[in-house]
Amino acid sequence: MTARQPDAAVIGLDLGGTKIAAALVAADGTVLARHSLPTPAAEGAEAVLDALAEAARGVRAPGTTAIGVAAAGVIDPATGTVTSATDTIRGWAGTALATGLATRTGLPVACDNDVRAAAATELAALREGAAGRGGDGPHAGGVPAGPRPTLVYAAVGTGVGGAVAAEGRMLHGAAGIAGHLGHLPSPEAEGLPCTCGATGHLEAIAAGPGITAHYTRMSGVPADRLESVAARAAQGDPHATAAIVLGAGAVGRALGGLANALGADHVVVGGGVPRIGALYTDALDAAFAAELMPPLRGLRPVPPGAGSDAAVHGAAALTRTLPLHSPRTTGVPR
Amino acid sequence: MTARQPDAAVIGLDLGGTKIAAALVAADGTVLARHSLPTPAAEGAEAVLDALAEAARGVRAPGTTAIGVAAAGVIDPATGTVTSATDTIRGWAGTALATGLATRTGLPVACDNDVRAAAATELAALREGAAGRGGDGPHAGGVPAGPRPTLVYAAVGTGVGGAVAAEGRMLHGAAGIAGHLGHLPSPEAEGLPCTCGATGHLEAIAAGPGITAHYTRMSGVPADRLESVAARAAQGDPHATAAIVLGAGAVGRALGGLANALGADHVVVGGGVPRIGALYTDALDAAFAAELMPPLRGLRPVPPGAGSDAAVHGAAALTRTLPLHSPRTTGVPR
Repeated sequence: MTARQPDAAVIGLDLGGTKIAAALVAADGTVLARHSLPTPAAEGAEAVLDALAEAARGVRAPGTTAIGVAAAGVIDPATGTVTSATDTIRGWAGTALATGLATRTGLPVACDNDVRAAAATELAALREGAAGRGGDGPHAGGVPAGPRPTLVYAAVGTGVGGAVAAEGRMLHGAAGIAGHLGHLPSPEAEGLPCTCGATGHLEAIAAGPGITAHYTRMSGVPADRLESVAARAAQGDPHATAAIVLGAGAVGRALGGLANALGADHVVVGGGVPRIGALYTDALDAAFAAELMPPLRGLRPVPPGAGSDAAVHGAAALTRTLPLHSPRTTGVPR
Repeated sequence: MTARQPDAAVIGLDLGGTKIAAALVAADGTVLARHSLPTPAAEGAEAVLDALAEAARGVRAPGTTAIGVAAAGVIDPATGTVTSATDTIRGWAGTALATGLATRTGLPVACDNDVRAAAATELAALREGAAGRGGDGPHAGGVPAGPRPTLVYAAVGTGVGGAVAAEGRMLHGAAGIAGHLGHLPSPEAEGLPCTCGATGHLEAIAAGPGITAHYTRMSGVPADRLESVAARAAQGDPHATAAIVLGAGAVGRALGGLANALGADHVVVGGGVPRIGALYTDALDAAFAAELMPPLRGLRPVPPGAGSDAAVHGAAALTRTLPLHSPRTTGVPR
């Protein structure tokens, strides 16, 4: 591999509900420039596309070849559109994300959802680790990870999302929905309505709002956010502790079952909810371990290994593995 | 593709707990010869390897190039060994299946578990169907299946097994265990012990013995086999009906959740239990549909499309996609 080439630099954009982060990333992974600005979520999709273009301009240098976007919502990398999304960004579902941004910047654009982009960074690290070890060493979780790891990546926050890489390849699945781990049936969520319209899904008991709502159901005490429940658990409140342990256990069971079904050799749990701490992660780990079939014993969930730059690095890396969408040419209807 | 060539014929062996079926399969899929004999399960692994070799001899012709074996148990195609197995065949776990058979026959051998081999036949049919349609037509279940289908294949019988193909590739996973769908957590199985040592797994309520045991728990009436429960349900016994509907619903929910997590575009349910009939399949279909996220709606489980030759065809096809293991040479310890 040659040393850093100006013409190989790409822009990584991490689009969140409140902030857009941009980085110019060289071929060797060095971040050459950074920029960030607020997401104009309430102003709708066109304003967000404009803001993404502005963020890209903020880091662009001569010789920049492409843009990778990691965005919230269900993204179809093949068409470059937002298949479905919550209303965090007004009118986001249906947006022609790749073409819209390519037209605004003149650069080809690849896009995928943010969790999958973060998981791609983990996958690349696993592959490099396997290559460095000759591909037969144990990873931190205890099961040998070869050059084609099977990775289950869960992101537990205001929802339960995730990504699945099967034998070295990130899955997208029908309509780009692969990785929706929050919509596995969960014994702990029996009878609870899910955001997707079904009942009894993992997300309903294990996402931050699910834990908070369950605390209120058990205690009769209102709680506005997960941080309040976590603070009460830290003070010994048995209902708060029980709600957190139940949510963590539900994630652990679902991931353990999925590990059995796929033969996973690496399981990562990220997102804001695990930051509750040991009360959460101990319950998750125990529930996960109890599900595993004998050949997988020793596997355990780990936090994401990549640092704070994971999102923009993952976004930039999308330009190397996914379809690039060109600027819209004159005469093609918007 | 050239017409049938004697030198391209391969032997497919389907090893079951009671019977070994052998076929000589030409490159164009034509079955040129068949043979079958009983599985000497009680006599142990060496006797079974001898019987497999005898079955192969029964169909072998000059120019036969390889053997593919579809076998019960957890098989690791990379090493050609039986990773783990129940005691249906005495001492089967740990058997060097591929090398043992290659040494007995002088032919290279590829092997995999029987469900994965059957699923590979389905996968090939989906790929061919997609190619014939240009890759964009809907399949019977309603979601477009492209040239790289994501297939979830469940086999519901005395256990709940399966296979998963992700975006066109059959998964094997860590230790070859990918496809163990019976070891997903199931709300319907809460608290029940599973054969794997965990509790609350799908297999505990949805396999034939699980349905039978649940009938007995509810009714207090002993039942020796699933057929007895099915017969009582056909006569209107409410406990028998409830046990069957619960088992079918548990499979439907688990498969629906897995379809969400993987973005499946094809779901197949085979095995003996679905042969109960409409009482079973209606309950399974309804539970499956209720789990699906909006982008997957319209997807529905279908029975296996391949006929009675699926097992030997799938076994023969393994020789084209999996590692071939050579006969053991002198000096290498048995």
